[in-house]
Amino acid sequence: MTESRRGRRRSGESPARPSFSQAPFRPLPNSLPKVEPLSQDQIEAIHRSAIRVLAEVGVMVLEEEAVDLLKAQGAEVSGQRLRFPPGMEVALLDAMPSQFRLHARNPANDLAFGTGVPYFGTVASAPNSQCLDQGRRPGNSQDYLNFVRLAQVFNAIDLLGGYPVEPLDWHASTRHLDCIDAMLRLSDKPFVGYALGRERTLDLIEMARLGRGRSPEAFREEPSCMATINTNSPLQIDKAMAIGLIELARAGQVAIITPFTLSGAMAPVSLAGALVQQHAEFLAAAMLSQAARKGAPLLYGGFTSNVDMKTGSPAFGTPEYLKAQQIGGQLARRVGVPYRSSNVNAANSVDAQAIWESQMSLWGALTGQADYIKHAAGWLEGGLSASFEKFVMDADMIQAFRAYMQPLTVDEAEMAVEAIAEVGPGGHFFCTAHTLARYSDAFFTPMTSDWRNFEAWSEAGGLTATQRANGIWKAALASHRSPTLADDFSEALAEFVARRKAEGGVEVDF
Amino acid sequence: MTESRRGRRRSGESPARPSFSQAPFRPLPNSLPKVEPLSQDQIEAIHRSAIRVLAEVGVMVLEEEAVDLLKAQGAEVSGQRLRFPPGMEVALLDAMPSQFRLHARNPANDLAFGTGVPYFGTVASAPNSQCLDQGRRPGNSQDYLNFVRLAQVFNAIDLLGGYPVEPLDWHASTRHLDCIDAMLRLSDKPFVGYALGRERTLDLIEMARLGRGRSPEAFREEPSCMATINTNSPLQIDKAMAIGLIELARAGQVAIITPFTLSGAMAPVSLAGALVQQHAEFLAAAMLSQAARKGAPLLYGGFTSNVDMKTGSPAFGTPEYLKAQQIGGQLARRVGVPYRSSNVNAANSVDAQAIWESQMSLWGALTGQADYIKHAAGWLEGGLSASFEKFVMDADMIQAFRAYMQPLTVDEAEMAVEAIAEVGPGGHFFCTAHTLARYSDAFFTPMTSDWRNFEAWSEAGGLTATQRANGIWKAALASHRSPTLADDFSEALAEFVARRKAEGGVEVDF
Repeated sequence: MTESRRGRRRSGESPARPSFSQAPFRPLPNSLPKVEPLSQDQIEAIHRSAIRVLAEVGVMVLEEEAVDLLKAQGAEVSGQRLRFPPGMEVALLDAMPSQFRLHARNPANDLAFGTGVPYFGTVASAPNSQCLDQGRRPGNSQDYLNFVRLAQVFNAIDLLGGYPVEPLDWHASTRHLDCIDAMLRLSDKPFVGYALGRERTLDLIEMARLGRGRSPEAFREEPSCMATINTNSPLQIDKAMAIGLIELARAGQVAIITPFTLSGAMAPVSLAGALVQQHAEFLAAAMLSQAARKGAPLLYGGFTSNVDMKTGSPAFGTPEYLKAQQIGGQLARRVGVPYRSSNVNAANSVDAQAIWESQMSLWGALTGQADYIKHAAGWLEGGLSASFEKFVMDADMIQAFRAYMQPLTVDEAEMAVEAIAEVGPGGHFFCTAHTLARYSDAFFTPMTSDWRNFEAWSEAGGLTATQRANGIWKAALASHRSPTLADDFSEALAEFVARRKAEGGVEVDF
Repeated sequence: MTESRRGRRRSGESPARPSFSQAPFRPLPNSLPKVEPLSQDQIEAIHRSAIRVLAEVGVMVLEEEAVDLLKAQGAEVSGQRLRFPPGMEVALLDAMPSQFRLHARNPANDLAFGTGVPYFGTVASAPNSQCLDQGRRPGNSQDYLNFVRLAQVFNAIDLLGGYPVEPLDWHASTRHLDCIDAMLRLSDKPFVGYALGRERTLDLIEMARLGRGRSPEAFREEPSCMATINTNSPLQIDKAMAIGLIELARAGQVAIITPFTLSGAMAPVSLAGALVQQHAEFLAAAMLSQAARKGAPLLYGGFTSNVDMKTGSPAFGTPEYLKAQQIGGQLARRVGVPYRSSNVNAANSVDAQAIWESQMSLWGALTGQADYIKHAAGWLEGGLSASFEKFVMDADMIQAFRAYMQPLTVDEAEMAVEAIAEVGPGGHFFCTAHTLARYSDAFFTPMTSDWRNFEAWSEAGGLTATQRANGIWKAALASHRSPTLADDFSEALAEFVARRKAEGGVEVDF
């Protein structure tokens, strides 16, 4: 069931010298059943309450163009406060696609959202990095590039979920140009950028187009990049996000609308209330997207969790978070769009807590039937750090889920009655023909687990899983080779970046 | 949602001085849906193949009394090799109870198996202990007693799954007497003993009876102890286990029939084949139990996992293990008895691997609808060590699942439209009446997680979860108080132990 990286190397590249092995790349349909904590009536109650919030409380929209678009669709406007008459959402949201293809610059890496296959993206937007060798440090370009390389190397990773870590040493006015350029050159997987205002959004869209060498007209029908739209909870859409949402929709690119409804802080302390608010904020932003362009692709992002009432810190991977993930999936299905969830934890080091919170999140995302699992590899510290060792272990956990999702064969040969008869009571199966024919790929082989006995493990240094992961990411990084980028696409991209840099990039407004 | 231990203290005990808090005790029905990797046809195919194995290959039964019992029910006997004509199992197994109550000496701790409530038991039978202070050492009585105390203290633990660690400093001939005596005095939760031959089994049963002060006749109708029956895979039932199974059945006590079918070693390398063998071995042992006494209570134990083909070590928490857990649940439901699974891992220290393998096992057990989850707290190193720190973290993960299984309230007050209106766009919920009325028990509070930010966590010493768990088990241990045992029960128990010790205990035959 495992193969070395060699098996995936593309012709024309210099030979990689892999010193680690991983399971083959195979995004599979999710074989776990939907888990639905709420009844259909309860989901309707939450949906109706969200409609009521939009009608009675309304939303602040801090951008005139967005206000005008929504007003034209029937919103009642009072300054920047918009209220949405019940029913307005029905007609406006009726063309949201339930499925769409996200195009990678390598078509083999395209992702079919809404088809039941869960896709896993890297951690995104961490301001710091962590690894065992250097500890914690501010995000920087070297770490940024290395995370992008790891995303390309690991088969478990389907897309770059954003900038894994902020390269703070790249100037903010042109950082997005360098970041996207690196994603397109070091990787040929799909990617998520940032819709922070008009210029950055248009740059993102244009670079995604140049990387694929498509005409603007063709490109508009082919979603090829995504950006997260976080509402400013409670009930606000700020200027940068409003413009980003409009431009993404007009260009036919994907908005991942994700209210950050932290129960007890920016949302009600009751989980049902936080979900009402999440749903209301999603609906408001979705209406803006669809007002800009009917049928624009988007995802329903769920990020509702709770604060720790003792410290005010956000908590993740908790029982409440798990429920919110699963109910978020129900709400996304209620409105008929693909669903985004996350693999998150609030631990400060890659310890047991980091893993159990992550495992709970992964199970929540998968039983919630998420189409896109963001922050699936590398997230630590509530998102304040991207960790290299965590990246490896997350990739390992993801490939274990992919192995689990392989259907089990149940036929005469696999049920092995003949082999059982051959061995008989009291024997063993080590050298039977049945075993010899199957043993090499019978079982999933993790990257990080050490299954030796205590004595052998101790003699070999007694390394923890986190210490072993440290060696693995270095080996993985050493095996990275940049995938081919056609010369004309490469030149067009370089020219664009040079021109935009000469123009000074974007005004730094934050 | 949390309370201190104080809330559960019984009157008449000296006051505890708890320095840790935990969630209240509340075994709840499993709200996760069944996950069934195989179709009903595939389950029937496995069931039929198991019947075929029993008919064509047969089972070695190394005890004459057991051979005679099965021969009387129609088994074809050739020396110690028994073959079971197809159909023999139908009539013989038709009275196995699908539900039964396991009586604790404190009725508040009774467990209702087969009712959809999952129960969690301690690690059992580890030959070594581990803690951060003293590292790894051979099992000893001090550690044994401390684990029994912890089982009593933690609300997440429903029963003692056996001897958590072997007290090797207690002589083997009388160890079972001291072990059971300690379980009955330090705890009032149900317990699992060992059915290793006639004398130990009868001692176990008698001590369970004396601890509850019941007459032999009443006791036979009230299951009050359990013991695991491991077949000697492949396809053997040894003398000690055969006798134990017979005596448990005759006394109306519970056999947990658990074939140890390690795929690739003692069972076929194909998972379907290992499950056929598991099922065949269960059926053979269940027939022996029912031949001894029709209607004797038992559990279907699933322990099928795979060996690591590189090292020959057993692996746990793998994709194959997860599938085997879920399919094991299907097979148990096929024969209509409660199901036992486990929370297991093969890590040598309480690191990230220990946790992700445990989490996968816990999810496998719960989505497999296990009624009893053995080794649910403290298991490490493939069962070769019981860990104090792992015990705490497992208890924490279990109480998180229990919190998740609390139904969510969805009504007008919880949906909080009024509170959302009161706060309005751009506000926060920290001091609203809605928050103040709910914040103190709105969210689950774990014992071990540290959610402070990186700086505060670092200043406080930067402890890992495992290090924090070290402090917690000591605080938990300090809060232990022995529950009241009625004087006459206590005296009867002491007299029995003294008499059996004077008789020399059991002959040490292993």
